[in-house]
Amino acid sequence: MEQLQYQEGRTEISHFGKVALIDRLTADTGCKGDDCAVLGEGPQRTLVTTQTMVEGVDFDMMYTPLKHLGYKAVSIAISNIAAMNGTPRQALVSIAVSNRYSVEALDELYAGIRLCCDRYDVSLVGGDTASTRAGMVITVTLIGDVEEGKIVHRSGARHNDLICVSGDLGSAYAGLLILEREKVTYQANPDFQPDLDGFDYVLERFLKPEPRMDIVKSLAERNVVPTSMTDISEGLADSLLHLAKASGCGCEVYEERIPIDYQTSRVCSEMSKNMLPVSCALNGGKDYELLFTVSQSDYEKVKEMEGIHIIGYVTEPGMPSVMVTPQNTTIELRAQGFTKD
Amino acid sequence: MEQLQYQEGRTEISHFGKVALIDRLTADTGCKGDDCAVLGEGPQRTLVTTQTMVEGVDFDMMYTPLKHLGYKAVSIAISNIAAMNGTPRQALVSIAVSNRYSVEALDELYAGIRLCCDRYDVSLVGGDTASTRAGMVITVTLIGDVEEGKIVHRSGARHNDLICVSGDLGSAYAGLLILEREKVTYQANPDFQPDLDGFDYVLERFLKPEPRMDIVKSLAERNVVPTSMTDISEGLADSLLHLAKASGCGCEVYEERIPIDYQTSRVCSEMSKNMLPVSCALNGGKDYELLFTVSQSDYEKVKEMEGIHIIGYVTEPGMPSVMVTPQNTTIELRAQGFTKD
Repeated sequence: MEQLQYQEGRTEISHFGKVALIDRLTADTGCKGDDCAVLGEGPQRTLVTTQTMVEGVDFDMMYTPLKHLGYKAVSIAISNIAAMNGTPRQALVSIAVSNRYSVEALDELYAGIRLCCDRYDVSLVGGDTASTRAGMVITVTLIGDVEEGKIVHRSGARHNDLICVSGDLGSAYAGLLILEREKVTYQANPDFQPDLDGFDYVLERFLKPEPRMDIVKSLAERNVVPTSMTDISEGLADSLLHLAKASGCGCEVYEERIPIDYQTSRVCSEMSKNMLPVSCALNGGKDYELLFTVSQSDYEKVKEMEGIHIIGYVTEPGMPSVMVTPQNTTIELRAQGFTKD
Repeated sequence: MEQLQYQEGRTEISHFGKVALIDRLTADTGCKGDDCAVLGEGPQRTLVTTQTMVEGVDFDMMYTPLKHLGYKAVSIAISNIAAMNGTPRQALVSIAVSNRYSVEALDELYAGIRLCCDRYDVSLVGGDTASTRAGMVITVTLIGDVEEGKIVHRSGARHNDLICVSGDLGSAYAGLLILEREKVTYQANPDFQPDLDGFDYVLERFLKPEPRMDIVKSLAERNVVPTSMTDISEGLADSLLHLAKASGCGCEVYEERIPIDYQTSRVCSEMSKNMLPVSCALNGGKDYELLFTVSQSDYEKVKEMEGIHIIGYVTEPGMPSVMVTPQNTTIELRAQGFTKD
């Protein structure tokens, strides 16, 4: 009988990024490192994905309404289905909670879960509950489908393809910064009334993100099948690097093309004069927008699409992934992601 | 901004059993309260289930080898597929861990996950990692399939059907009792060498349960489709009550027919003279054996099956669920389950 902590030959988890860790643990298995697993054969394939959110790490009960939390847990799982160009169909929700939570609190959580399921035509078909000593863990399994010829992997980007993103980036992180700022002020003085006026967009982006099923639909209407795609969960830099690595090529994006909302810029300037909005976009994460590549021949179709920005192009195999500044400086991209602590 | 704890009109989670809580939260959704969700149409149906295990509640790192833990997490999810008479096919594993765990520790965990997947011909197709402040949470999603006409629900038991269980019951709980006893002794005196000799069977039953896919196969070979089935995760009493409730009938089981291993009886007598082995079987849980009903016409076929015990029969709608003792006393069954704390 011994505590199973490894002292000798110990490698810290932090030495690996999230994707690299999963790649190591699942080497030589059926895991392909995409946003979803693809099952079955024939013209219609099944997509399956699982997403875990942990209290104190992925969400803070101090400022997260339970209904929003339930909505978000389903939403970010649907985002993985969107990232494979699929349609979400069924969800299973596992919640592990301590007795600090009442049944009424779980009702609220489930109200959000159901709302998101209803909104995206997803059937809630199963789930599990478990107990924790403290805190809440929510795992959502999402099942979807996609036509065989329309599955989009991370690995399909080719030299000269155009790099596109949906929506705007960095706003979810800006929302988180505001919530953390108000929390610290509130903790110092509980009589304090938080001032969230004028930040409604960035707050909603963090607390209640929407999966970009509208973009998946819009691509289908225009007969555009991206050559590669992923969702932006850990920041644009991280997603670009994974897509480039999986596709065996490099990428070049232009700083002034990266879409950033004015509220995001305002938050950055309020926080610190050294905080650049583009850093939020590259490294903030939690935007759940889509990053995808299309061949040059689809340029006219994509150019017309609302909410799509072409931010650069795919470079040759062996090239680094870089961002070009308005001053024409080339900066090599590095993944940072963010953890809230 | 406020902490989301509900004071007024607060209902404690402990007022509900696990199944009743899930039933409440998922009322009016596609959740049917079976061990798996059934998806699709046509001759082959897809089964999906999700199972969460939480450190400090479902497992104790003090005495749980990580390889066994990985094996068990997959095993108990496969057990849900077995409980619907299905065949397991693919698994997705989500792990949330703190930085107390090294990469080498996760390698060990995954060695167990892979071992169980290999043993039951399951492909590991995906997963997710997340961070926790403390402790580990493992969620396994298992996908399987079953022929349309062979799906077995909890709700199909009919008056006069025979009630059967596989294996023996109470041994996993006996194993847990031994581990907890040795832990307490070790904590009092760290020089103490635990004595686990002669308890290998019950220890393995708790630490590394096997899903009863052999029984599913054996039923198929004999052309027996149970009228109802579930796995015994929270004790025989709990499983009998759910099956009876879902089927709208009662049940009567005979105490001397309930299969109990001699090691289980030995653990009980060592622990306390008031501890009855049948209490471990009824309320201990974590055995992951199958409980099923068959029509009387299958009696001859089931009687011949190795490892199957016929313990009673299904009674009329409106009747209570009871156990008859060797002294011919009738005791009404109540669900208790167990939590380790």
